[in-house]
Amino acid sequence: MPTDFASAQLALDLVGVFVFALSGGLVAVKKRFDLFGVLVLACAAALGGGIMRDVLIGVVPPVGISDWRLLSAAALGGLATFFLHPAIERIGRFVKVLDAGGLAAFAVSGSLKAATTLGVAPIAAVLVGLITAVGGGVIRDLLAGQVPEVLRRELYALPALLGSVVVVVLVEQGVLRMWMLWAAAGLVFAVRLIAVRLDLNAPTPLRSGTRT
Amino acid sequence: MPTDFASAQLALDLVGVFVFALSGGLVAVKKRFDLFGVLVLACAAALGGGIMRDVLIGVVPPVGISDWRLLSAAALGGLATFFLHPAIERIGRFVKVLDAGGLAAFAVSGSLKAATTLGVAPIAAVLVGLITAVGGGVIRDLLAGQVPEVLRRELYALPALLGSVVVVVLVEQGVLRMWMLWAAAGLVFAVRLIAVRLDLNAPTPLRSGTRT
Amino acid sequence: MPTDFASAQLALDLVGVFVFALSGGLVAVKKRFDLFGVLVLACAAALGGGIMRDVLIGVVPPVGISDWRLLSAAALGGLATFFLHPAIERIGRFVKVLDAGGLAAFAVSGSLKAATTLGVAPIAAVLVGLITAVGGGVIRDLLAGQVPEVLRRELYALPALLGSVVVVVLVEQGVLRMWMLWAAAGLVFAVRLIAVRLDLNAPTPLRSGTRT
Repeated sequence: MPTDFASAQLALDLVGVFVFALSGGLVAVKKRFDLFGVLVLACAAALGGGIMRDVLIGVVPPVGISDWRLLSAAALGGLATFFLHPAIERIGRFVKVLDAGGLAAFAVSGSLKAATTLGVAPIAAVLVGLITAVGGGVIRDLLAGQVPEVLRRELYALPALLGSVVVVVLVEQGVLRMWMLWAAAGLVFAVRLIAVRLDLNAPTPLRSGTRT
Repeated sequence: MPTDFASAQLALDLVGVFVFALSGGLVAVKKRFDLFGVLVLACAAALGGGIMRDVLIGVVPPVGISDWRLLSAAALGGLATFFLHPAIERIGRFVKVLDAGGLAAFAVSGSLKAATTLGVAPIAAVLVGLITAVGGGVIRDLLAGQVPEVLRRELYALPALLGSVVVVVLVEQGVLRMWMLWAAAGLVFAVRLIAVRLDLNAPTPLRSGTRT
Repeated sequence: MPTDFASAQLALDLVGVFVFALSGGLVAVKKRFDLFGVLVLACAAALGGGIMRDVLIGVVPPVGISDWRLLSAAALGGLATFFLHPAIERIGRFVKVLDAGGLAAFAVSGSLKAATTLGVAPIAAVLVGLITAVGGGVIRDLLAGQVPEVLRRELYALPALLGSVVVVVLVEQGVLRMWMLWAAAGLVFAVRLIAVRLDLNAPTPLRSGTRT
């Protein structure tokens, strides 16, 4: 991967890790876990998606456990939640914005890394991007004993999928430029925020006449 | 792997993926998830077992995210559940038959792939077959917030284990023929259906006198 | 890895596997699972941490599915729980001691294996040790539908982290001797037991004035 993409990827990873650490920490605080519980859940939410990405594309050990910058960002997010959570909760709407930022950062960073790894087919790169984006949240919710947001929330997986497709197409066409990565992340971010704002939901199944 | 085994494996994988997608979709419909929730749960149930198999034997990226035929089968199963679920629910007994078919297909496909992969010991191949067969269902149930069927249902893991052992022994003896794969799948299928029909259960622990 | 470390690692693995199999089996017995449910949960708890370790450092297939000695120890622990659980429950305090032993054994075995594997950075080795130690318990609790102990219990992750750091530092300094492995395990064991005995907990978040 050219140097500038590598640095963009690290920046995207750092943003995603920190933001998801905040989300994991907040869930833990709400469940009244202790300091270590908060840190564990923050780190699991922050690093889980990237670890799944790296295991799926054969990059072991995953950067999520070997890069001290990502680990520090995760721990920092957890600590911030623990000590500042009244403030963070008050800015609950801001957190939803941050969460959309994390989704956007990880969708782009995941699909970029997969698409530029030898032997990963384009379709696999798209799915790896999606898994990177939603994986940390799934782990967070499973550990905390709640149904994963990706299964119940307004359009959540779709923006991530969209961003992954854009990045992989750009890589495959050989036209990817730095600014396009940030534009793709911005696209995911915007679509997700519009979905939240408008409370857009996918259709639910028709009620079956057989279940009364 | 000889070509004919490869095609048999793909056929078995496709059957297993489609059937488990139906099962995942049905669980999601019952939980009133929206369209994307249904698709996510269907794909997770359909592809999860095969992804775990490939990660365990070092085949990355797993075919579950790189083969468009498997992905299409999973998505198709999810969509079918979403749009046709009243019909599918009415044929609930048929679904249990299909589920047994998925278990059978994945037990054989998982153990076959592992046993024919360089560096995988026979005992590991048996366990990989078992994990492939039950893994998707475990992921489905964890995501949906219910205790995995493999832990509470009438003989579920045992038929899969049996089929895996048969396939691995045949591979090790060098006597495997195409028809034997289908016979092994048929064996798992039959044992599982008999267990369902007769409501066969493994014994439960004796009630302890110390807990009243 | 020198032969003597390999044998120490196997011994530590066997201890950890057997003890966590007992813990998984006891949880399954309490949930009234049948024989196969007990065996499945015992094996998942016993082998899960080691499988995660090996996948993270690229050792596939993981020894947790390829080494019959570990598999036998896991199955034996599950069977023991199933048939002897009244006795095991009566010695509940002894089980907590055993569990601390498992945590200690896996923290040392996990960090040792990772630190002596080519291409694993020290910081990654520490985290792999931690994940090995707590991973099986997390899988056990997720499958059984309860919040993982690592998130809610008195100092649980900290002793494991401490042991991992000690082992990795010793490996990096090139001064590791056999007896130090056992001393590190003893340290984890002791710290964990003291935490249990004194009911030491990490601080919990301040109650937020915004939530009444």
